[in-house]
Amino acid sequence: MEVTEQVAALAQRPLKRGDSFIVDFGRHMAGYVSFKLSGTGEAVDSPVRLRVTFGEAPADVAVPLESYTGTLSRAWLPDEILNVDFLPRRVEVPRRHAFRWVKFDVIDTSPNFAVHFERIEARAVTSAIMEPAPLPAGTPEALRSIDRVSLNTLRDCMQTVFEDGPRRDRRLWVGDLRLQALTNYVSFRNFDLVKRCLYLFAGLPREDGLVAACVYDDPGPKCGRQFIMDYAVLYIAALLDYVKAAKDQQTARELWPVVRKQVELVSQFINADGLFADPGGWWIFIDWREELEKTASMHGVLLFCLKQAVELAGHAGQQADAAKYQALIHRMTAAGRTRFFDSARNVFVSGPQGQVSWASQAWMVMSGLATPEMGAVALRNAMKMPDAVRPGTPYLYHYMVEAMLLSGLRKEALDLLSSYWGGMVAAGADTFWEIYDPSDPMLSPYKSILVNSYCHAWSCTPSYFLRGLQLGRTAG
Amino acid sequence: MEVTEQVAALAQRPLKRGDSFIVDFGRHMAGYVSFKLSGTGEAVDSPVRLRVTFGEAPADVAVPLESYTGTLSRAWLPDEILNVDFLPRRVEVPRRHAFRWVKFDVIDTSPNFAVHFERIEARAVTSAIMEPAPLPAGTPEALRSIDRVSLNTLRDCMQTVFEDGPRRDRRLWVGDLRLQALTNYVSFRNFDLVKRCLYLFAGLPREDGLVAACVYDDPGPKCGRQFIMDYAVLYIAALLDYVKAAKDQQTARELWPVVRKQVELVSQFINADGLFADPGGWWIFIDWREELEKTASMHGVLLFCLKQAVELAGHAGQQADAAKYQALIHRMTAAGRTRFFDSARNVFVSGPQGQVSWASQAWMVMSGLATPEMGAVALRNAMKMPDAVRPGTPYLYHYMVEAMLLSGLRKEALDLLSSYWGGMVAAGADTFWEIYDPSDPMLSPYKSILVNSYCHAWSCTPSYFLRGLQLGRTAG
Repeated sequence: MEVTEQVAALAQRPLKRGDSFIVDFGRHMAGYVSFKLSGTGEAVDSPVRLRVTFGEAPADVAVPLESYTGTLSRAWLPDEILNVDFLPRRVEVPRRHAFRWVKFDVIDTSPNFAVHFERIEARAVTSAIMEPAPLPAGTPEALRSIDRVSLNTLRDCMQTVFEDGPRRDRRLWVGDLRLQALTNYVSFRNFDLVKRCLYLFAGLPREDGLVAACVYDDPGPKCGRQFIMDYAVLYIAALLDYVKAAKDQQTARELWPVVRKQVELVSQFINADGLFADPGGWWIFIDWREELEKTASMHGVLLFCLKQAVELAGHAGQQADAAKYQALIHRMTAAGRTRFFDSARNVFVSGPQGQVSWASQAWMVMSGLATPEMGAVALRNAMKMPDAVRPGTPYLYHYMVEAMLLSGLRKEALDLLSSYWGGMVAAGADTFWEIYDPSDPMLSPYKSILVNSYCHAWSCTPSYFLRGLQLGRTAG
Repeated sequence: MEVTEQVAALAQRPLKRGDSFIVDFGRHMAGYVSFKLSGTGEAVDSPVRLRVTFGEAPADVAVPLESYTGTLSRAWLPDEILNVDFLPRRVEVPRRHAFRWVKFDVIDTSPNFAVHFERIEARAVTSAIMEPAPLPAGTPEALRSIDRVSLNTLRDCMQTVFEDGPRRDRRLWVGDLRLQALTNYVSFRNFDLVKRCLYLFAGLPREDGLVAACVYDDPGPKCGRQFIMDYAVLYIAALLDYVKAAKDQQTARELWPVVRKQVELVSQFINADGLFADPGGWWIFIDWREELEKTASMHGVLLFCLKQAVELAGHAGQQADAAKYQALIHRMTAAGRTRFFDSARNVFVSGPQGQVSWASQAWMVMSGLATPEMGAVALRNAMKMPDAVRPGTPYLYHYMVEAMLLSGLRKEALDLLSSYWGGMVAAGADTFWEIYDPSDPMLSPYKSILVNSYCHAWSCTPSYFLRGLQLGRTAG
């Protein structure tokens, strides 16, 4: 994007049928756009028809939306058709949009007049009020940029809930919430918002008590009617993180029944051997990679969350439950080491074909099933294998970095963070994206980048690593 | 238009991408539409994109607007694109529209849900509050229908000003105002609205004092910057009508300077012979017929308005001005009879080619230049001539009917009214149209019927004739 003139000059420029311009607001935001529209000419004698298109990324305002052939609803495309009756008038686009660039197309005036745009304003909204502390002195500029973009991402996703993305789908998802909350604790520190989200999930479960994968908060709180096995148990981790960060044991006690219910519902899929066995018919997320074999990862997620539950039981005063979980943890750890570790190749494998993936390594480490030494070897080996299934989303990249840190691979973790998130910064990102594959800039799970979300909460965790885990110090 | 089901049944009908329906609100109105939109299905997981199209006439919702190639701005087309974020929600279309039929197109939901429309409501707005008196007993049903449609037309044009049409251009025009006000005096009797309009024109003239052809009232009162010679002097007639109907001599006195200025500015185009001589460069309206030669008509309009000014001078206490006008009236009457009457053919003619038109006859009669006997003969002769230029608009049909009444042709006047306005009723009109030519249903001054106005104030005067001039009694 090249700046051609300052926005104030627009007021002098008459625009007629077919004319257009793009305004760069200088930063990404979730918010509202308004402008004054006036007319000059022989007679301002008809309504004006405008199209306003909101771009998170330059492609959003550069690619004709008519070309859209993605799999998601066309209603996600971020454009508005506005008819304005009488000029001059202040026009407010009523919907909230996520944008940095806004394209204005004059579809039609009448032949007798042209329109002028003045005082084009954006009003950003967020519930990230507090100013984050500065990064430690000596943090390299490249990491400062990554931190800034991470915080922008989180800020614009923090609304009445932690949205996954302010463009799409503007929903609260368990898996995203956990990563946002972790970053929030070391930046904006809005504890009440996390608490509200935890209670929303607790209050809107499936009939049997399973935590929903997502909830809606508009026009009122509502269960999202989608259920993801790994997300349901990750609720436990999100709750423990909160209880520790906010020092709020009262909430731990109140929400303990939700924790117990998740363990009860999901641990039934641990078979007599102590292994996770996919019952079929469930959505197990882990990552967006169709080819990913998820058995080892799901085993790891559940084991990780059982350990979180044990720690949480201490805060909630639920030692009896904790003891039962400990027994399960032992069985799963022992069985998992045997089943998922390929001692010939020194990597964790999953499924009948022994698939190697970054996801399996990450979750074997996160769960503690891998010792740090095993983990370090497995992670390094898997990352060197060209056929290993790599992550599809920043969400899984987060757990890769976290697993590397747990395995003592600080330098490698920082390198991965710097190359992956730094790649988005180098590509001009203001906020981190839902999807990023350095080798495929047109990648979209929806078969069109026009509906990709370019401010997506699950990619905001570099600030957690840099601030909460002092990863930046590794750089020195 | 055929009714396929009752609107309540819609709430049960799921609608998805590409589905549409048309609601018939049972009557024309100017107003606002709102509805409740809800979703059903696996997950209501995306915004909804709708198109709402407002029809005054069935063609408005039956002809694809994409086919529009008219000369007016595309922004006049009565459709809205609405994006609705979260369901269920009440949706209000923010702009005022003129409609009886509304088409709803579902552009897209997501594959996971369908939408339902409930409680589709319209709120009509008007400043025509008072209930008109019933027509005299014994008025034939055909005339009652014409009266009803006339009053509907006037009602929907009465807003903060007398609009020419609530669809387009929603402006106050002098020529239209006079006809609306005449009808208003014998129906809704909102005298304050007329007074407001007269003062708007008085307060927003051209720099030299000429009354503008139109004014805008939104976002605030503003001169329309269009000037029509015949409309400027017809302001005098509109003022006199008001002063007599409202018995408001105070306004006559206050606005007399406006009257004097119009006479001064327009009478300079009366040459030494006492004839109107077109100075060129002026818009003289009279009617929408490109081929119409307007010299005789304009002579007649000015002479008519001078006589109105003389009568008004009596209310305003301006006898000195009146005496000057009388002198001009005598010269114009004598000169006009010589110049414009073709005694061989017994019709009034206009221009170097001696063009015969209904317009010339009408205004020669209206002006009193033609005696009732001359007028009756001339009107009958012209209407029989196949080559005579016929009216293009209901506006001129009004003056034809009025001229026929002045000439004692009550039966013929009623026949013309019954056939012309009755023709629109027979064609299904709820309100009378801007343009109607029984021989050409696709006629549009804008080269597309999609921007014709189907509720147009200058066609509302049948109620004036039936109520104010008791024309219906002629039927017996």
